[in-house]
Amino acid sequence: MKIGIIGVGLIGGSLALSARKHIPDSEIYGSNKSEANLKKSLKMGLIDFELQKNDIKSMDIILLTVPVDIAMNQLIDLLDEVNDNGLVIDFGSTKYPICQAVALHSKRGQFLATHPIAGTEYSGPEAALPDLFFNKIQILCETQKTRPDLLEWAQDWFKKIGMNLREMDPVAHDQHIAYVSHLSHISSYMLGQTVMEKEKDQATIFDMAGSGFASSVRLAKSSPSMWIPIFEQNKDNISETLKEYINNLNNFKSLLDNEKYDELYDKIKIINSIDQILDGIAKTTKNN
Amino acid sequence: MKIGIIGVGLIGGSLALSARKHIPDSEIYGSNKSEANLKKSLKMGLIDFELQKNDIKSMDIILLTVPVDIAMNQLIDLLDEVNDNGLVIDFGSTKYPICQAVALHSKRGQFLATHPIAGTEYSGPEAALPDLFFNKIQILCETQKTRPDLLEWAQDWFKKIGMNLREMDPVAHDQHIAYVSHLSHISSYMLGQTVMEKEKDQATIFDMAGSGFASSVRLAKSSPSMWIPIFEQNKDNISETLKEYINNLNNFKSLLDNEKYDELYDKIKIINSIDQILDGIAKTTKNN
Repeated sequence: MKIGIIGVGLIGGSLALSARKHIPDSEIYGSNKSEANLKKSLKMGLIDFELQKNDIKSMDIILLTVPVDIAMNQLIDLLDEVNDNGLVIDFGSTKYPICQAVALHSKRGQFLATHPIAGTEYSGPEAALPDLFFNKIQILCETQKTRPDLLEWAQDWFKKIGMNLREMDPVAHDQHIAYVSHLSHISSYMLGQTVMEKEKDQATIFDMAGSGFASSVRLAKSSPSMWIPIFEQNKDNISETLKEYINNLNNFKSLLDNEKYDELYDKIKIINSIDQILDGIAKTTKNN
Repeated sequence: MKIGIIGVGLIGGSLALSARKHIPDSEIYGSNKSEANLKKSLKMGLIDFELQKNDIKSMDIILLTVPVDIAMNQLIDLLDEVNDNGLVIDFGSTKYPICQAVALHSKRGQFLATHPIAGTEYSGPEAALPDLFFNKIQILCETQKTRPDLLEWAQDWFKKIGMNLREMDPVAHDQHIAYVSHLSHISSYMLGQTVMEKEKDQATIFDMAGSGFASSVRLAKSSPSMWIPIFEQNKDNISETLKEYINNLNNFKSLLDNEKYDELYDKIKIINSIDQILDGIAKTTKNN
């Protein structure tokens, strides 16, 4: 089986490792906009061959694992070129725009929109992990629009990798994911910015910051090449979540400024029930 | 040597374990406002005896490891009662108010103000860890006001536990710590609140939240009994950091709403240099 991976980085590289393990006789072709990273993924054995434009039509499966803006730019051409039994799967963090873009394509049935809830703050082929998807949620959108035989193949493969499958409407996906993923990246970026603006002397941060700060600001290491296109494609939902987050912060600040400590106490008591949610996340998907 | 611990929880319990290991012939007395937790710490062997009010005068060392409001309420009485060679050490997350409170006390030389940059989001005696302080920073304030022989004893003990000592002015401490610790707790609480308000259906959060969300919101589990008094004692500094954080978020939102993606990209590129700071934190203090 010939598998083409467009963008052999954290997600694409980890999928390559999973394909190698679970798909018999897999021949893995890969491309990368960075020549250095492409060579690295060949040398590391993540892929067997470079994926050339001419190879697309001979691929059985094409995995689209590039930033969401590039995925949108390439998907139509890929579907145009793929053979009549090829399947193109995307793995991006926004789902409505890409589903819209292919809605009327004559080969819509050969496309599957997914979002694996898995990742780290690192990128590039060195960031690939063999068990990145084990026990993680894989969200599938508009499965009724994918050709049943191709859908079944993909679902089988995801299950073999150890993923737990969920179906979700792409509009609902983009709304929910703004809260539970996109917002926490922005809060983390802004926390990093606020502290760095103030603390010019890094030694002070080294001395005084504990594991709590490190944990809260971890996502601020995430690459803008990946995240700016996500913010762009999910702009309206993210703007709404940011509005609510800023309102909550203003309200907290106002209670603090007015010394309403009892109200702050009650508020935090309620927020503490997040521990049940975090336990739920830990049970649903193993966060390593 | 008789050691009294007022508040045998995460910090007090971990100090008990460290005292047991590093101080010869230690007899450990402890108190807790919760009778159940006191019994637990006796049963777990964290402490040998309950610390009664009458025992204070016979203690060589008293460790004050209670929320910062209770520490302020008890410190004067403790200093009044302690014998002429006893040392009282506090371990709270705010330093200026407590240093002010004892500034004119006749036994000021028998007090040492510290802040260990160590902790977890858990509390109570079960949360105590034998190596909580290993390779962590211990901040000492106004050491010149502590009697040299008592200061030397404390410094020796902290070094034996594996702590790295830093001296800092209490006013500067409270300003810096607002940025690198107090703010990240508030950003985390508010992130938890924003998501919980929106996502009434916890199953959706379980499915869609990855390790990034869990990491950003971890601190939102922290106890209000500990944190509200910190916010109260460091109100002005925290209000200022919150103002800057909210300004940065508003600025981010405005760039997003106006589709200034190139500016957002440049901003995040700069913030990404936080990875050097996080590496620095990892080297200075091991964040387990």
